[in-house]
Amino acid sequence: MLENVNSPEDIKRMTYDELELLAAEIRRTIIDTVSKNGGHLASNLGIVEATLAIHRVFDAPRDKIIFDVSHQSYAHKLITGRRDRFGTLRCLGGISGFTNPAESEYDTVIAGHSGSSISAALGIAEAARITGSDAYSIAVVGDGSFTNGMIYEAINNCADHRDLNLIIILNDNEMSISENVGGISRYLSGVRTSRGYLSLKHTLDKFLMKIPVVGTPIARALKWLKDSFKHIFISDTLFENLGIPYVGPVEGNDIKKLEAVLEEAKLRRGVWLVHIVTKKGLGYEDAENHPERYHSTGCFDPAVGVSGTQEECFTSKFGEFLCMRALEDRSIYAVTSAMRDGTGLDRYAELFPNRYTDVGIAEEHAVAFCGGLAVSGMNPVCALYSTFSQRVFDQVFHDIALDGSHITLALDHCGIVPNDGATHQGIYDVSLFSPIPGVTVYSPETYEELNKTLSLAIYNSGVAVVRYPKGKETVYDRSSFSSSDSLSYRMPRCAPDAVIVTYGAITSEAVAAADMLAPKYNVGIVKLIRVSPLPEDELFPLISGAKLIYVLEEGVLRGGIGEALASKLSCMGIHSRVVIRAIDGVFVTHGTREELLHRLALDSKSVATEIGNELGRSCPTSA
Amino acid sequence: MLENVNSPEDIKRMTYDELELLAAEIRRTIIDTVSKNGGHLASNLGIVEATLAIHRVFDAPRDKIIFDVSHQSYAHKLITGRRDRFGTLRCLGGISGFTNPAESEYDTVIAGHSGSSISAALGIAEAARITGSDAYSIAVVGDGSFTNGMIYEAINNCADHRDLNLIIILNDNEMSISENVGGISRYLSGVRTSRGYLSLKHTLDKFLMKIPVVGTPIARALKWLKDSFKHIFISDTLFENLGIPYVGPVEGNDIKKLEAVLEEAKLRRGVWLVHIVTKKGLGYEDAENHPERYHSTGCFDPAVGVSGTQEECFTSKFGEFLCMRALEDRSIYAVTSAMRDGTGLDRYAELFPNRYTDVGIAEEHAVAFCGGLAVSGMNPVCALYSTFSQRVFDQVFHDIALDGSHITLALDHCGIVPNDGATHQGIYDVSLFSPIPGVTVYSPETYEELNKTLSLAIYNSGVAVVRYPKGKETVYDRSSFSSSDSLSYRMPRCAPDAVIVTYGAITSEAVAAADMLAPKYNVGIVKLIRVSPLPEDELFPLISGAKLIYVLEEGVLRGGIGEALASKLSCMGIHSRVVIRAIDGVFVTHGTREELLHRLALDSKSVATEIGNELGRSCPTSA
Repeated sequence: MLENVNSPEDIKRMTYDELELLAAEIRRTIIDTVSKNGGHLASNLGIVEATLAIHRVFDAPRDKIIFDVSHQSYAHKLITGRRDRFGTLRCLGGISGFTNPAESEYDTVIAGHSGSSISAALGIAEAARITGSDAYSIAVVGDGSFTNGMIYEAINNCADHRDLNLIIILNDNEMSISENVGGISRYLSGVRTSRGYLSLKHTLDKFLMKIPVVGTPIARALKWLKDSFKHIFISDTLFENLGIPYVGPVEGNDIKKLEAVLEEAKLRRGVWLVHIVTKKGLGYEDAENHPERYHSTGCFDPAVGVSGTQEECFTSKFGEFLCMRALEDRSIYAVTSAMRDGTGLDRYAELFPNRYTDVGIAEEHAVAFCGGLAVSGMNPVCALYSTFSQRVFDQVFHDIALDGSHITLALDHCGIVPNDGATHQGIYDVSLFSPIPGVTVYSPETYEELNKTLSLAIYNSGVAVVRYPKGKETVYDRSSFSSSDSLSYRMPRCAPDAVIVTYGAITSEAVAAADMLAPKYNVGIVKLIRVSPLPEDELFPLISGAKLIYVLEEGVLRGGIGEALASKLSCMGIHSRVVIRAIDGVFVTHGTREELLHRLALDSKSVATEIGNELGRSCPTSA
Repeated sequence: MLENVNSPEDIKRMTYDELELLAAEIRRTIIDTVSKNGGHLASNLGIVEATLAIHRVFDAPRDKIIFDVSHQSYAHKLITGRRDRFGTLRCLGGISGFTNPAESEYDTVIAGHSGSSISAALGIAEAARITGSDAYSIAVVGDGSFTNGMIYEAINNCADHRDLNLIIILNDNEMSISENVGGISRYLSGVRTSRGYLSLKHTLDKFLMKIPVVGTPIARALKWLKDSFKHIFISDTLFENLGIPYVGPVEGNDIKKLEAVLEEAKLRRGVWLVHIVTKKGLGYEDAENHPERYHSTGCFDPAVGVSGTQEECFTSKFGEFLCMRALEDRSIYAVTSAMRDGTGLDRYAELFPNRYTDVGIAEEHAVAFCGGLAVSGMNPVCALYSTFSQRVFDQVFHDIALDGSHITLALDHCGIVPNDGATHQGIYDVSLFSPIPGVTVYSPETYEELNKTLSLAIYNSGVAVVRYPKGKETVYDRSSFSSSDSLSYRMPRCAPDAVIVTYGAITSEAVAAADMLAPKYNVGIVKLIRVSPLPEDELFPLISGAKLIYVLEEGVLRGGIGEALASKLSCMGIHSRVVIRAIDGVFVTHGTREELLHRLALDSKSVATEIGNELGRSCPTSA
């Protein structure tokens, strides 16, 4: 069936039997591709029928579908003209694992962070009203995202915009990334169990709704009848209290039922919240049983499945460290924002449930909550991904630093994050947090440094950020390096032609570049372990004699370490030649780490070439 | 009465008649001081009785009171040992307009931004549980803050922590800063009007509650009785749906009633949301009638009151500009985050209600909503204060810039914000937004430049930030300046000894410094109008010949314009002498602008002295 689907128009003509076959094919394609390329599996398997129903009821791209986070948009991609390219998912030059308007007119916005879909959909619906369009906006939001404050802010605002054509589909799969948390989750669970699913009554109501109501007294009477029926299946709910008409719950893996409800919401116009219940991982047994393992996965053998045990990596090492410390130090308290497994806190959560909270996808609250713990003498450690820490600048400033409180921010997935693309790069955190008074930023490159910096961080004053990359430490010969708490360096025997100043995972590229240049130039390496404040006393003696100071940075140029260093040298009257190679003015797409480093000229070869050229230019005699 | 109150213990002994007298004295003191020093009036007048009741029922500082935003903490300050210093409110070295633990052990945290109180209170209560303390945490939150997503995130999380001693007091004064908006406001309004206030039933229940329940069968029977009574006055509510027991509404200006309810919530233990209704501005008629004028006010004559018309200033000029443009351009859409009057959009809101939204105190949603408008071809202008824009880094990145969308961020209150203190300084925005690809930052210093940069911004591509100071443009002779769209400069006739590169309101200090130095040194001034990206082509020719480039920045050093410039010069091999004078490693307290500039060595005299010293050192012959 799938090979006949070139646009959503093609699925509108299908029978329900055909749709069932199509759904199975879509599932096979998704399992096949994700097992090869990695990606989000469980959520995409769960939402196949809902995606088909939405596209049958609405007319994309005229009607705008906005997927929250958009990690669940694979079925949508497959039926909107990207079937043939689906094998390139998450590969350089291939299609993104998230929606992207540059890829298809059916993708409304780029997304990757939670909670923004209703805001965007409301803006689009408001624009439609102003321009006189009767197009619909449809926000598709997982129940996990309903723990996020932006969703609430947007719903609160929707109540002032009831005259828009806006459908919010709450896709309740009873899971966030791991088990769902908080009051909203309990509420939805209560609704599911106490109320039962929408069924036949609904159909009668739907029939009545199709009778036009404008004008005649009979129509007015019918409207009264309709409104009465409305109350049969729409009882008083949380969302109605917040001013949003609610309908549900509906079985979200039943295309027919879901279509009927969506048709009705569409017919009624206005803002509607449609609560659908779907099964995460549906159609792949191991994913149904362990959806958390298949939220975001690397490649795997579909016949075997994904193992539940995590390989050794920075994430697991962080978890181990914190467990060890928490055993000895009863003031340690770990906070995660719906990323228990993703940040390596699974074991900690089992061992120390009393000093652990998963706050939901609520980074702002996570940090402010740590602020409360900190003023009471606890030693909070908040584990986030770098890209999601972009949400907490103000909380780090206002709720921690201003109070002179101490917390540790453990930032995972720093630097280049290969296949997820522009929404998930961890390249802003250094620029973001360095300007706040009292913030110390550590960037360990090895597991040993991770342990050392975490130990320093946890007993630091102020805010300590420990940022580390996704995956494993890089293996290369570090025996010739000398190290302190703040930096690690390898200097040539004679005066260096150049010193590369760098930090984090990209250090291996710097080392390889120095080795490439070795026959011709003496190139030293200084790896910063504490990147902010700069360890000037140790750093300056190492670099002051070099003809060239080359800063290599797996992060953005503006506000980065290169700028801080160059500026500092300049103000101190040290007029060394400085070159900064960092990420400037571009968003970093998806691809392998190697591909992306090369594209950004951050790989060892590009670095060696640039340094060679610079030195060749500066010392033409030695060329 | 007030002069006998040295700590909350003193009010616990008072009769209700004495308390009434005390409340009146507190009001007079607040009106008297705010009319002299400026500050928040209406909210502080409304919460006097509630403050007394809270302090009578709970035992601060053992029990921790956290005021959301904490602009309503004046009565709290007056009864917690700061009566004698209250006249120094918001003055340099005096007490802060917000809570600050450095000032008193009764202040739990520093606050100034909305929505963080429940998070902090939850963290404090959780720490109490872990350490075995039975102390209470009490979060006092205005209904305006209930439009903020952090409040929701925290409440959602509270449902997982029902065993804590946490009281959330929802202070419903039916107002945010201006009229309240959104679903939550309508909901609370419905509760107030449909349910009526708590009264006698409550007392019976309270009596029953006092009977101990543990152990005996009689006690168990009594518990059943209690639980039944509970349902008499606690009906199903929004908050109960979210998992938080609710009680209310209670008349919040009635000490006796409020005390009874708080006592009961305390007795029952666990997490409680107590909904109190207070009258904003109570006791000062003009503030009761026009609370929005008295939210935050400058000094005024209490006999006359605050005028409803705004004087000419950057805020009013922004509003005028937008009205003019919106008349001509029907794609203009203005969004504010509960700051209609504060950002000068009052007239716009009247004239263009169809292209205007106040989203509540919800900056994140405001920007993401603009993202939806922008992808639909609207031209959104989001007006925020600089300090509150600290919350939207991720939304500017994720919901605007990644999509290549165009919005204008109009940032008011940039640079030093005198009397509000550390929570309200507008000194991070340049460092914050400059690293995001496609962001242009303008920093107009005059009304003319405001109009010009807004015109540029609105028809820019990407994100355009227009940042301008609080208050009026500074008057000085600009006739000798030459200007382009990107910068304005005044150069000496002969080669400059120094060039000061600066931007924004502080330019007048630079000019005064140059004038002071004129007898001895030739000092040029370059005022950047576009601060990011740096207008290098125009800027470098002006500064390259100078012996000293002196960057004067009313913002933080890290990630600022000085660092960008010094680093760029260094990388270009232009080895000029550079000095950067910016704000580094400190929080900026409250005081007058002059006092604060002096303290930060950003005033003309300090600048002249520093430049003189630098030039004296560099050219000893000319000294």
